[in-house]
Amino acid sequence: MNLTLENVFKKIEGQKDLALKDLTDFIKIPSVSAKEQNLQEAAEFSEQLLRKNNYQTKIHSTKGGPVVTGWLDVGAKRTLLFYDHADVQPAEPFELWDSPPFELTIKNGQVFGRGVADNKGEIIVRIYAIKAWQEVMGELPCNIKFVIETEEESSSKNLASYVEKDANFLKGVDGCIWEFGGRNQNNVQEFILGVKGILYVQLSVQTLSKDAHSANAPVMTNAGERLLQAITKLKNEQNKILIPEFYTNIAKISSEEKQAIKDYKFNGEELKKSYGFDAFPRGMKEEEAKMAYFTEPTCNLCGFGSGWLGEGGKTVIPKEAMVKIDFRLVKDQDPETILNNLRKYLDDSGFPDVKIDWWNGYPAAKTPVSHEFVEICKRANKEVYNHEPEIQPTSGGSGPMHLFEQYMPIVSLGSGHADSNAHSPNENIFIVDFIDGMKCIAAILNEMKNW
Amino acid sequence: MNLTLENVFKKIEGQKDLALKDLTDFIKIPSVSAKEQNLQEAAEFSEQLLRKNNYQTKIHSTKGGPVVTGWLDVGAKRTLLFYDHADVQPAEPFELWDSPPFELTIKNGQVFGRGVADNKGEIIVRIYAIKAWQEVMGELPCNIKFVIETEEESSSKNLASYVEKDANFLKGVDGCIWEFGGRNQNNVQEFILGVKGILYVQLSVQTLSKDAHSANAPVMTNAGERLLQAITKLKNEQNKILIPEFYTNIAKISSEEKQAIKDYKFNGEELKKSYGFDAFPRGMKEEEAKMAYFTEPTCNLCGFGSGWLGEGGKTVIPKEAMVKIDFRLVKDQDPETILNNLRKYLDDSGFPDVKIDWWNGYPAAKTPVSHEFVEICKRANKEVYNHEPEIQPTSGGSGPMHLFEQYMPIVSLGSGHADSNAHSPNENIFIVDFIDGMKCIAAILNEMKNW
Repeated sequence: MNLTLENVFKKIEGQKDLALKDLTDFIKIPSVSAKEQNLQEAAEFSEQLLRKNNYQTKIHSTKGGPVVTGWLDVGAKRTLLFYDHADVQPAEPFELWDSPPFELTIKNGQVFGRGVADNKGEIIVRIYAIKAWQEVMGELPCNIKFVIETEEESSSKNLASYVEKDANFLKGVDGCIWEFGGRNQNNVQEFILGVKGILYVQLSVQTLSKDAHSANAPVMTNAGERLLQAITKLKNEQNKILIPEFYTNIAKISSEEKQAIKDYKFNGEELKKSYGFDAFPRGMKEEEAKMAYFTEPTCNLCGFGSGWLGEGGKTVIPKEAMVKIDFRLVKDQDPETILNNLRKYLDDSGFPDVKIDWWNGYPAAKTPVSHEFVEICKRANKEVYNHEPEIQPTSGGSGPMHLFEQYMPIVSLGSGHADSNAHSPNENIFIVDFIDGMKCIAAILNEMKNW
Repeated sequence: MNLTLENVFKKIEGQKDLALKDLTDFIKIPSVSAKEQNLQEAAEFSEQLLRKNNYQTKIHSTKGGPVVTGWLDVGAKRTLLFYDHADVQPAEPFELWDSPPFELTIKNGQVFGRGVADNKGEIIVRIYAIKAWQEVMGELPCNIKFVIETEEESSSKNLASYVEKDANFLKGVDGCIWEFGGRNQNNVQEFILGVKGILYVQLSVQTLSKDAHSANAPVMTNAGERLLQAITKLKNEQNKILIPEFYTNIAKISSEEKQAIKDYKFNGEELKKSYGFDAFPRGMKEEEAKMAYFTEPTCNLCGFGSGWLGEGGKTVIPKEAMVKIDFRLVKDQDPETILNNLRKYLDDSGFPDVKIDWWNGYPAAKTPVSHEFVEICKRANKEVYNHEPEIQPTSGGSGPMHLFEQYMPIVSLGSGHADSNAHSPNENIFIVDFIDGMKCIAAILNEMKNW
């Protein structure tokens, strides 16, 4: 390691308490986007954090929570952007927390509080890493931009409208560090290079104006049964989705990506143990399951409800039924096209009465595993953690990454760990990971010099 | 009409206030079997009612609510039995009642209160009709028996155990008047000669030890989807039930019964209007729908629940799913055999993991439409109402009639009307129907003389 980076690392260690002080104040703001609560306050806090570190800033209002941008233009060739969010998940159920969720609590080298992992902690990590670099080295090796939104935990409802208006801010960025990441169950850092897309629909059908006595079962159409018949048209027992043209536009998986999946340490036995099941669906072996996890689009019944669900045996023909389905999409599948095909397919299959009550969705996004920016991040990771990161070419989950992917390569990495409880009680990070996370950002800055 | 029956009718009219006084006291007892509430008190009230009218009585204790029997043995050739119940449905929601549910309220020739139609009112009707006969004619034309249970509104849970123990009381009975009945929407009296059987099952499946993020959809089995696959095996889109041997033991419909169904005024258009649907299932015409209503066994999805049913779009793989199904059975189908076949069918279809959480059921029961006892009741009905009753060879619903049908022919008739609200707020009967109901019982006694 070169001496100057070593000095940045020392500076980082020295400013731990300052960083934790800022994190303490940040955690105090209960910026729960699901409740549209304190989003403006969290945005203003983020902006002030950037301003006091000499960023130029702007708060962009949207129809919902605001978006904060900050930038340090040093006239460098390259520009690095950080995408983060200042909103958090609801903290309920409060009684399952061992300490107050909106008070930073330090215990046995761990920091507890809603948002410490997802993602207020990362904002502090990133700002303080850059600050340490400046204090030690003076000149930054690249220009820095931040986009901090306040509705990520509520599907980033208004981020697209921001991106559309502020496209010039995003153009010409060379690489983006996405909000989340950390070390996995095996204590190995993971990089996530993409997300699946999603189409979420709520379907419903009503067959009667009121529930009927089931004596009438021979002469009335049961809404639950009607909806079931429609749902069984959606996929076969081999899990193939039957909506026409569903698979038509799927992008090919590159050989580098196949290799990355092969290299990824998917712990199937651990997954089975953790979720209490014996076998993967359709007799898949572990390697097949891993490939499916990363590459398969899905049609998953998140919920289904109709009729009497209480105790005992009410004999009723339900008048209505409802189902919630999430389709996870892979690269180049378009949610809106699939939605239109779904509507037409239901109509053509004899189910024009099955309504699509609402939907939302966005496409998948991926950065090629062989992209130079990924290499930069890998080298920085090695410098700090002394191992190669495990690469997830795509997450199984979804996010608004496509809004940025059109402009820049993206790597998601961070300071969390496998039991950070990002959406659960007792959300936490380790102080050692908090410090190492800063060092990793500093090491990325160092690598940016040579790009 | 013969003079002596005319005198009994006059006596019936004269004792209206006495009968309403007893009904008033009976309604005051909130004997809600669903809450196991005041069942002993209602049984004792019934017993005293019989005792003060010179019946011999007995209260039979069971594991649940007691059963009251009463008898007047006059040494006649024939014996008539009345099956009734002294328990009522819950009165909730109280706020929808225009008068207190457990206080008899008379308004504009109507009597309101929980139980006036179902079935405390009928108990008073029947006892007072027999009393009037005795006061006018002295000698009864047949022996009289009463069976008054206290758990009818909770599936007659312990009636079978009573019937088994007291079989001698039921043997040798020539005809039974069942608990309920009255005039339909067209102001025509209806007789119900049977009930469908029922098999009610709750099925469930668990595929995971906890709900999972739907990112895992490619590698985990969704409990809701698993249960759906099992359910789709149960019947096809033509509504044919696919459980092996489901239709094997079905009794043939007699030509008399076919004729009775043909004669029955099934108002399909009214049903469609009332329940807001346009067409019967599978393109059935009205006559086909009527035949299906009376003769088809069914498999009806009373309820289905799995996963996220709240607002918005939670992306989850549910760990468990549950469905409630009622099979309505026709004559000679045995619920326990069908249950066993269902279990075997699920196993053989690859669903041994779908549990049958609980079940209950009983077989169908029917009295032949051409039975002499039905003719007796029809002649009596004509005498009072001056029209032929409409015959339902079987109800679309179910009841514990099979317990008595093994010993005697059964006709269900009574003093209610189409809007009696038997299981709803503002349960009511008309005083004129209350009196006519007594006259009909007296006319049946008169017909029993000549049998």
